[in-house]
Amino acid sequence: MSKFLGFSCSLCDREYGPNEIIYTCPKDGGNLDIVYNFSSLKQDVSSDMIINSPEESLWRYLPLLPVNQVHGRETPLQAAGWTPIFSPPALREQLGLQSLWVKDESRNPTASFKDRASAVVVARALEIGVEVVVTASTGNAGAALAGMAAAAGQKAVIFAPRTAPPAKIAQLLIYGAEVLLVDGNYDQAFDLSILAANEFGWYCRNTGYNPFTLEGKKTAALEIWECLINRRSFESPLAVFVSVGDGNIISGLHKGFKDLQALDWLAEMPRIFGVQAEGSAAVANAFSAGVEEISPVAAETLADSISVDLPRDGVRAVRAASQTGGAYLTVSDAEILAAIADLGRVGIFAEPAGAAAYAGLHKALKQAIIGSEDPVLVFNTGSGLKDVNAAMQAVAPAVIIEPTLRAVEQALDLSD
Amino acid sequence: MSKFLGFSCSLCDREYGPNEIIYTCPKDGGNLDIVYNFSSLKQDVSSDMIINSPEESLWRYLPLLPVNQVHGRETPLQAAGWTPIFSPPALREQLGLQSLWVKDESRNPTASFKDRASAVVVARALEIGVEVVVTASTGNAGAALAGMAAAAGQKAVIFAPRTAPPAKIAQLLIYGAEVLLVDGNYDQAFDLSILAANEFGWYCRNTGYNPFTLEGKKTAALEIWECLINRRSFESPLAVFVSVGDGNIISGLHKGFKDLQALDWLAEMPRIFGVQAEGSAAVANAFSAGVEEISPVAAETLADSISVDLPRDGVRAVRAASQTGGAYLTVSDAEILAAIADLGRVGIFAEPAGAAAYAGLHKALKQAIIGSEDPVLVFNTGSGLKDVNAAMQAVAPAVIIEPTLRAVEQALDLSD
Repeated sequence: MSKFLGFSCSLCDREYGPNEIIYTCPKDGGNLDIVYNFSSLKQDVSSDMIINSPEESLWRYLPLLPVNQVHGRETPLQAAGWTPIFSPPALREQLGLQSLWVKDESRNPTASFKDRASAVVVARALEIGVEVVVTASTGNAGAALAGMAAAAGQKAVIFAPRTAPPAKIAQLLIYGAEVLLVDGNYDQAFDLSILAANEFGWYCRNTGYNPFTLEGKKTAALEIWECLINRRSFESPLAVFVSVGDGNIISGLHKGFKDLQALDWLAEMPRIFGVQAEGSAAVANAFSAGVEEISPVAAETLADSISVDLPRDGVRAVRAASQTGGAYLTVSDAEILAAIADLGRVGIFAEPAGAAAYAGLHKALKQAIIGSEDPVLVFNTGSGLKDVNAAMQAVAPAVIIEPTLRAVEQALDLSD
Repeated sequence: MSKFLGFSCSLCDREYGPNEIIYTCPKDGGNLDIVYNFSSLKQDVSSDMIINSPEESLWRYLPLLPVNQVHGRETPLQAAGWTPIFSPPALREQLGLQSLWVKDESRNPTASFKDRASAVVVARALEIGVEVVVTASTGNAGAALAGMAAAAGQKAVIFAPRTAPPAKIAQLLIYGAEVLLVDGNYDQAFDLSILAANEFGWYCRNTGYNPFTLEGKKTAALEIWECLINRRSFESPLAVFVSVGDGNIISGLHKGFKDLQALDWLAEMPRIFGVQAEGSAAVANAFSAGVEEISPVAAETLADSISVDLPRDGVRAVRAASQTGGAYLTVSDAEILAAIADLGRVGIFAEPAGAAAYAGLHKALKQAIIGSEDPVLVFNTGSGLKDVNAAMQAVAPAVIIEPTLRAVEQALDLSD
């Protein structure tokens, strides 16, 4: 019997067979959750099988994913996920935390968390025999799809708003994607990508639309379980901090932990904390108001990867915190820049959206939402090399000196 | 008995004890090779010990390195090396090669090969009790030292010429390094860094000066041995292609293979091929002339990481090819840009210096220096995210369209 039973709507709970539907619930447009046959999974898969896997990538979790084969062996597709978890002593001291880990998603093949989603979407596209994958994106999701599709030998079409930064467009073009700069805003690019996918028979990866992105993203939760929770005994549940834009990453983490509980491999659900930029806080607003309905905002923050007017996976994102004893926090752009510098000083170069989670943890400690004895894991979701302009705002400029020892002494205040 | 016996001058063969000397040969300024006690290593270390190491980093080779401890556990220092080796089918087909691998060094913590050298230098600095590390650099070596030093809690001072690109300086500053922009050229920054190291008791990482950088870089050869050579049987020796600037990476690879032969773990020496930019070909010139003495050039190439007037490790770099049945090739900037696009189309985003080796392989095939049955490994030494401006020169710009299906059809030529 297949492990992958079908889909369940996150709004109305209606269920669909695995080949009955592709994207969202036809009844209410709700995002779909993948439904597994856990009784058969419990018989077929043991945690030891996973833990002893030789795969140094997210494909070690293939038995728990809704695809059947690892494609693109010996390509970057094979190298997504399985990112390092650091525990920098200086950050523990700075925050006064006994246990702190940083999971560094910038170490993915295209340098962001989004590779996890794109790897699974590309594998799904190969299984259903679609040769062209498509998405609307201004940044990491597009790069991840372009990179993973290139690795798998698929053709990728990326719709971006005409105003997208040229540097981010360059990464798409390098991966050989067809890049269409839409003379309009992001919403128009999003709508056009769906229209085009339907018209031309392409497979659309759009976040908060394609149900397979969540499954890729859940692998980060599986790694936290395997590398951290399963190897230690925590006195209080692990608190996981992650930045939130469209809400798909935090929902994916929640799904991963829920799947582990359904397998009886995880005793205690981690508490999940979402961090949004103050200027792009649609999900945090809903959480604060105690509702699941998301009201759009006019997003404005330097953290472009989490700058979102209408989060397309907002309902599940609210639940990820509300159902786990977590919370939402918002941080200013200035706090995000300070977090970039804090992470940099221990050797982790984060983009603004990547550093936002650390800024949120800082705030949670100040507000006593987190105490010094709580074990905490914070995500860096993307590489600072993706947004060097923002990085330059986070640090003081370098000093210019004459080529003399005296000038070195003066600049570094070494003379006594 | 200690595994690390001391140093041997690469020019005059004079030997020094492990604490007798720090940088280069006082007699002739030659670069020093680290000398090991291979008879004791053969007794103490087996290849199975290495292969069964749980370390997913270059520290799995600690028994074969001139330091005794892994420092900075659970920091980015712990995550250097152990980079993926890909075998993209599309590149094999494009080149008509039966066996081709790409080792992707952009997956290192600061996104270049240089992390290997800096990790070992930082570990050495910790062992000899020096708290400040210093280097002159305009790019990857500086970022690697700054990042690894930050991970280890050391202070880093980086001397860069005032004209260094602001984006590369930003990465140094983010890692918390003291960055001094010298009002002069690279050679003045280099000389000042050595003066300052001697004056203030800092430990200088400069390439082609500090003997420990080579030992870090040799770990890439150990990985090629462990993951490729040791698992297969090749009918002809593996050909390894790598780009060459100052000559320290290619010399490090050579050293790694020589150490493996001294351990009797490697039957056949791989052939090592160095690739230089036409406009920065000092080592290739010496190789062509059949000499080891390096004459400086006025370097000019868009591949800034291998743009070097006077390679500081040129002699050993010539030998890496001449002593292994390899060769040197030179490539134009246009060929480098084409190689960036080739690698990008299979999901590998290389900086110009990183793609140069692939361009060289292309040329070696054209010139029948390499045949279709030769097994080949080519390095990508750094991430394309480090030089997005160069990447944009490698691809055609994106198309701008109206937000309509008709415009999509026209742009992608989909109408029939």
